[in-house]
Amino acid sequence: MNFSIIKRVLGWLLLFEAIFFLVPMITAIVYRETEFFSFMITMFLCIILGVACLIGKPKNNTIYAKEGFVIVALCWIVLSLFGALPFVFSGAIPNYIDALFETVSGFTTTGSSIIPPTYANGLGVEGLPKCILMWRSFMHWIGGMGVLVFIIAFLPLSGARNLHIMKAESPGPVVSKIVPKVRTTALILYVIYFVLTLIQFIFLLCGGMPVFDAINTSFATAGTGGFSIKSDGMAGYSSYLQIVVTVFMLVFSINFNSYYMLARGRWKEIITAEVKWFLIIVATAIGLVTLNVFLTDTIASFGGALKHSAFSVATVISTTGFATEDFNLWPSFSKAILVLIMFVGACAGSTGGGIKVSRLLILGKSASNEMRKMIHPKQVRRLTIDGKVVEDEVVRSVYAFFIAYIAIFVVSLLLISLDGHNLVTDFTSVAATMNNIGPGLDVVGPAGSFANFSWGSKLVFIFDMLAGRLEVFPMLLLFAPGTWKK
Amino acid sequence: MNFSIIKRVLGWLLLFEAIFFLVPMITAIVYRETEFFSFMITMFLCIILGVACLIGKPKNNTIYAKEGFVIVALCWIVLSLFGALPFVFSGAIPNYIDALFETVSGFTTTGSSIIPPTYANGLGVEGLPKCILMWRSFMHWIGGMGVLVFIIAFLPLSGARNLHIMKAESPGPVVSKIVPKVRTTALILYVIYFVLTLIQFIFLLCGGMPVFDAINTSFATAGTGGFSIKSDGMAGYSSYLQIVVTVFMLVFSINFNSYYMLARGRWKEIITAEVKWFLIIVATAIGLVTLNVFLTDTIASFGGALKHSAFSVATVISTTGFATEDFNLWPSFSKAILVLIMFVGACAGSTGGGIKVSRLLILGKSASNEMRKMIHPKQVRRLTIDGKVVEDEVVRSVYAFFIAYIAIFVVSLLLISLDGHNLVTDFTSVAATMNNIGPGLDVVGPAGSFANFSWGSKLVFIFDMLAGRLEVFPMLLLFAPGTWKK
Repeated sequence: MNFSIIKRVLGWLLLFEAIFFLVPMITAIVYRETEFFSFMITMFLCIILGVACLIGKPKNNTIYAKEGFVIVALCWIVLSLFGALPFVFSGAIPNYIDALFETVSGFTTTGSSIIPPTYANGLGVEGLPKCILMWRSFMHWIGGMGVLVFIIAFLPLSGARNLHIMKAESPGPVVSKIVPKVRTTALILYVIYFVLTLIQFIFLLCGGMPVFDAINTSFATAGTGGFSIKSDGMAGYSSYLQIVVTVFMLVFSINFNSYYMLARGRWKEIITAEVKWFLIIVATAIGLVTLNVFLTDTIASFGGALKHSAFSVATVISTTGFATEDFNLWPSFSKAILVLIMFVGACAGSTGGGIKVSRLLILGKSASNEMRKMIHPKQVRRLTIDGKVVEDEVVRSVYAFFIAYIAIFVVSLLLISLDGHNLVTDFTSVAATMNNIGPGLDVVGPAGSFANFSWGSKLVFIFDMLAGRLEVFPMLLLFAPGTWKK
Repeated sequence: MNFSIIKRVLGWLLLFEAIFFLVPMITAIVYRETEFFSFMITMFLCIILGVACLIGKPKNNTIYAKEGFVIVALCWIVLSLFGALPFVFSGAIPNYIDALFETVSGFTTTGSSIIPPTYANGLGVEGLPKCILMWRSFMHWIGGMGVLVFIIAFLPLSGARNLHIMKAESPGPVVSKIVPKVRTTALILYVIYFVLTLIQFIFLLCGGMPVFDAINTSFATAGTGGFSIKSDGMAGYSSYLQIVVTVFMLVFSINFNSYYMLARGRWKEIITAEVKWFLIIVATAIGLVTLNVFLTDTIASFGGALKHSAFSVATVISTTGFATEDFNLWPSFSKAILVLIMFVGACAGSTGGGIKVSRLLILGKSASNEMRKMIHPKQVRRLTIDGKVVEDEVVRSVYAFFIAYIAIFVVSLLLISLDGHNLVTDFTSVAATMNNIGPGLDVVGPAGSFANFSWGSKLVFIFDMLAGRLEVFPMLLLFAPGTWKK
């Protein structure tokens, strides 16, 4: 294990985090909030520690896959440990475990919150200072595309190194480099990300949303995060604004390669098999939920049923987690669909979480190939997606992901259930955190919060959110003894 | 597709089913019940149709894997279609869909029942004629080891044919032939099965259980079925009898190869990796549930907590489904454990259902091998169990099984949820039928029944029970267009 290079990357990370704090600090100045100093102190801490880590040149620059995983896992943990400090220093969230939960939920773009509607004398999130709210939203934006992808984009590191880091941080079964150079790929991704966020911001302003709300909502949508700055989520905004958010939640769930292809006019490469299936699943889910809530008279008008169904499906499958309606009160067929698409998640290479449509495609195709082989043992079929052969190695790693995912899910569920909530709460709380969605059902439904869990359970959720965002392997390998052996 | 051989096997099947009816018919004579004639009429129907199917020699005797799957799926469907008739003819269950549900639940050793405690003027199952009760239990016994294994054991068919049939019907990822000859293997399995059932019967008699009860309980335990002849399940029997049943539920969950090795004195081969892990899981689950129900004061005495926990863990993991306590009322940690071991299931080559411990072993080992490869890309590791290499083909088919299993589960859950029960009921009812257990939680808990589902949902459950018992592939391939193409 190359410790010196790990230390070095952690040093850069802390310096970048110090820069990130400028966003809430500027907010604090604009709104004349004393919480400014909480961020400033943390910023100094990050700078001092960051510089200390960067002293001395590493003897060895090589990063293997192993180091890639460890660096990514450690970076996200360190990022969260420091990101939580302003919450504690400012007194907004005095308990460090709670603050850490909220921070990890922010960076991993989960959006689960320990702030119940009764918080701050019944004001809920609206009782928090604006700079704190901005920090919550901005964490989503940073975490959405990946903090290390950000560092790669702006820091001169050698190519081979970057690839292993990018592989470990990027969502999806394979990293598709848009252009041969990793750094340029990272830069292009951030440009697309920034432009799309900006477009949403303008659309929101056009609908009359206040600037502060529009910035926060854009950050939280772009990262498919879901922290809201209102106690009632998106319910209080106009239909136009709700529809804009619905559309952009889906926009940010689509593989960013598609937008690159769109910009380059390579029309045939925009709608890949994954994007096609994603859209089919979204359309089917919206159709079924709309019919279900309309026919059962849960929502009286067809237009309203369609709007809320589309919003809820988009918020869950994009793993954002905003809410307009408390779908916890919907009929069980709709709830079953929402729970299922919790696991489906977004496309690879997007800011969304979940298992990812491309993984499900690979799993489904490989299983159906196996069954074909049972009937026609002599036929040899290769697994292809978009005309390209999917290597056996990729298929095997998708299977391994799936098994590891289920194993973490099961262990988490058992640990959580010791808190004595009911099974629906337990199951959906693990699903909501591991898939980086935010709300689940029942106690953790859109109208609830994670406040009532024990600190032990909160630590489990923190692990699950990180495992979900980093797609299982970095977090598992960090704790595997084999990783640290020579 | 070789239709003539399929017709021939179906013919034999019907004749064997006719013979099976002798058991309830003898019961009807002993207890002087007029339901005798319902069985007799069905028997004649089976004989006439069976003989008709056997007329004419097949041109072609070959059975490939494809025919193996189709024969097994069709046989189980036909077996159930006719097995349901006596329920309708006798008026015990007048609705044919209900009767079919009960029959499939019987043969697949599920033990889910559409007979609620309010049935037959509040008498529940106890209001049914004894010959009907005997038929329910006997179906478990026949289905447990497999009806086609039974036919293979007693019918002179050529060896190659048998293997494909046995492969498709036997539970577990691979068929381990105890001896080279398939027919002898089948015979040995049935001898072990018969002897173990007899031993349990004697143990039950020694505890003062009435003969009729002891026969039924032995049949239902041996097949890991779970139909009870009492409305309160096993709750009314003495602690001794409950403990005997606990032990035998576990005995019938262990790979029958182990008993063969025991009889041959090959001590080292008795405790295979699968058996070891099965026992570890059982012991851990019993320990945790006992502590949970005792510490939460759900059951006051430690002895009682241990007894009921052991019974409940054994009944769920063996996929039997008897009940002494309504574990629906237990704390959520215990319920979470019980729901999880619903999926684990028994050992391969036993009469129990579920995913099977050996499959989980293969999945776990293969995922951990993949992760090792991520850290040490150059190391090549083969997947071994009990010192033997598990072929890639087997691993891939286990993965395909797992994906297909989940796919069926998800589709079933969605269809069931249209009935408008809650999510816990929906989830556990699919889990209980697909894993051939019997009771789930909430509406389908140990004190409930499947009576309140729509007939559409009951058809889904019927498919799930068959898919679970036949381990997914035969039922899926029966409906795959590719199977029927030239």
